[in-house]
Amino acid sequence: MRNSTRSAVDPFIVMDVMEAARAAEAAGRHIIHMEVGQPGTGAPRAATEALARAMRDNALGYTVALGLPELRARIARLYGDWYDVDLDPARVVVTSGSSGAFLLAFTALFDSGDRVGIGAPGYPSYRQILHALGLQPVDLPTAPEHRYQPVASDLAGLDLAGLMVASPANPTGTMLDRTAMSALIDACAGAGASFISDEIYHGIEYEAKAVTALEITDDAYVINSFSKYFSMTGWRVGWMVVPGDQVRIVERIAQNLFICAPHASQIAALAAMDCDDELQANMDVYRANRALMLEGLPRAGFTRIAPPDGAFYVYADVSDLTTDSRAFAAEILDKAGVAVTPGLDFDPVRGHTTLRFSYARATADITEGLARLQHFMAAR
Amino acid sequence: MRNSTRSAVDPFIVMDVMEAARAAEAAGRHIIHMEVGQPGTGAPRAATEALARAMRDNALGYTVALGLPELRARIARLYGDWYDVDLDPARVVVTSGSSGAFLLAFTALFDSGDRVGIGAPGYPSYRQILHALGLQPVDLPTAPEHRYQPVASDLAGLDLAGLMVASPANPTGTMLDRTAMSALIDACAGAGASFISDEIYHGIEYEAKAVTALEITDDAYVINSFSKYFSMTGWRVGWMVVPGDQVRIVERIAQNLFICAPHASQIAALAAMDCDDELQANMDVYRANRALMLEGLPRAGFTRIAPPDGAFYVYADVSDLTTDSRAFAAEILDKAGVAVTPGLDFDPVRGHTTLRFSYARATADITEGLARLQHFMAAR
Repeated sequence: MRNSTRSAVDPFIVMDVMEAARAAEAAGRHIIHMEVGQPGTGAPRAATEALARAMRDNALGYTVALGLPELRARIARLYGDWYDVDLDPARVVVTSGSSGAFLLAFTALFDSGDRVGIGAPGYPSYRQILHALGLQPVDLPTAPEHRYQPVASDLAGLDLAGLMVASPANPTGTMLDRTAMSALIDACAGAGASFISDEIYHGIEYEAKAVTALEITDDAYVINSFSKYFSMTGWRVGWMVVPGDQVRIVERIAQNLFICAPHASQIAALAAMDCDDELQANMDVYRANRALMLEGLPRAGFTRIAPPDGAFYVYADVSDLTTDSRAFAAEILDKAGVAVTPGLDFDPVRGHTTLRFSYARATADITEGLARLQHFMAAR
Repeated sequence: MRNSTRSAVDPFIVMDVMEAARAAEAAGRHIIHMEVGQPGTGAPRAATEALARAMRDNALGYTVALGLPELRARIARLYGDWYDVDLDPARVVVTSGSSGAFLLAFTALFDSGDRVGIGAPGYPSYRQILHALGLQPVDLPTAPEHRYQPVASDLAGLDLAGLMVASPANPTGTMLDRTAMSALIDACAGAGASFISDEIYHGIEYEAKAVTALEITDDAYVINSFSKYFSMTGWRVGWMVVPGDQVRIVERIAQNLFICAPHASQIAALAAMDCDDELQANMDVYRANRALMLEGLPRAGFTRIAPPDGAFYVYADVSDLTTDSRAFAAEILDKAGVAVTPGLDFDPVRGHTTLRFSYARATADITEGLARLQHFMAAR
């Protein structure tokens, strides 16, 4: 069978690490997982309890394409609570994870061949989804002095139809403050480029509150998810806020592309939004883990790290240690028993000298992982 | 914000019917719903029980992109049980509903501008998804004497990159028998067009067993779903069987576009596959409803109906009654209190003289709906 050129998607390099880690575990070794990009915790207890109740007397058929009205209203209220932004629930679209939101946003905004800017390093699937839709991802190489985030001057001469930013970002954990995000929004407006803000790590922030694009403008697509702060990765439910005049357009695309987000997940998500105590307990773990990482990684010899404003990652420049992050990650797994992600997934050009460390799991694992890394680096 | 041309998705005409029905109900009227395309039943009890158990001790994080291995194995076994086809579980991809499978299949196989044949009448979202991906849907007008299914000669001169068929089909309920499907598969092979078989209504068939493309060839994409026979619409879980050499390609696209199908839904789906008693009880209802429809619709005056081999729809040619199916459906809702779907959603060119009646709901509703239709038509 003949395949499309758009189907030629790059493999995830980290999959090789994960498979090697799995094989090592199958052979009896104990591996610390600093490669995973998801919380070790499940959905809050009240979320699964709400679903268990609903399953008793609700057939859980299709919902309307934009999502359960009560969930849309509750999400709108979150913008009041978190950012003091008054948001019309009619602008909220419940999606099949942020993955579904990316597909909706890109389809609503871009035509075949359109150029869409994304920061490098960045979430690898931005590039692959754009490519799979027949669009053209344009890497904007970011600089440590700009917290690995794009800046307005990066857009000059690129003829972009859109710009996608992420704050806090994966893999760096860095954020755009209000000034930096405003400058990018202005630059996009000036260039006629649509502005898309990936805010899926909001709520997982440490020193300053993350800024939503909606504090600055209504003329943006804002994407969020229940996967990270709400600890519901496998449930595949997220949301998107769009300008009022975009709702009908997005609704029609969503009806056809997805019918609706999973009904059961929407019910669980609604209940999860009232579980702050349990979610803040997760945050206490991330906070403790982050402190351990910021102390332990430099002590091990990973000294050039991005400021981890949010999320649960530390991105390290290891150009003083290797020119082959893939081989280096394999060596760390083999000798230290710690799985880490080579930067190549996030930055195909410069990622051969970077690593991403995740601290999403239990604190005991982080402590042990850091001890192993220090031992490994000392012996190297 | 500027929108893409690919975002210009046609509205569902049936949405107007549903909104009018909702308004009528809000005003105190009782409406019989023959417009809905989903079972009134929920997931089998053992499916929700399995999920309730899993939620107690499973964090339900991401699964691997191809789906839970035990679910893939169980789906492969279904092909032995239902069709006596020996299927390698490695070829099974668990998807976010058949919607997710369409996106994966079209992305894996087609490039911007490629022409993909679909039968008219047909499921409206085929056309819209293709369009949203920058592909070109090509309607193949079908004929009653071919059971409203495309035939090999329809492909001549169309320069198709692929053909999508559905058996049993929506909106007609008609099937392709082995000879008819073989002829289409051969024609596609001869024309270098990929063959995609939508089999989401399999299991809901009345006189003959539906034929899967996998009985005829391994060189096809076969799409199925837990929504219809397994009565799990809102769970958004389905599957796709692809040729062995396509698995890695589809896996990479799925990793990026979806990460995974909803974990909770996969667990429920696995348990649903062992609930034949309950699912056959649903089938008894459809069977009784169908018998009522086949007797009652002609008696009401809807005499030109497609042979309803499967699914839970009857497609009626009403060209002797109207040239405006939209107005006719509105009249039926208004005067008879029965919501039905105008054919325009399924066949933009010829659907102004057709209606789709669904019999997915409770038998008492079907009886009442048919009585109302007979009364309405007699008074017309």
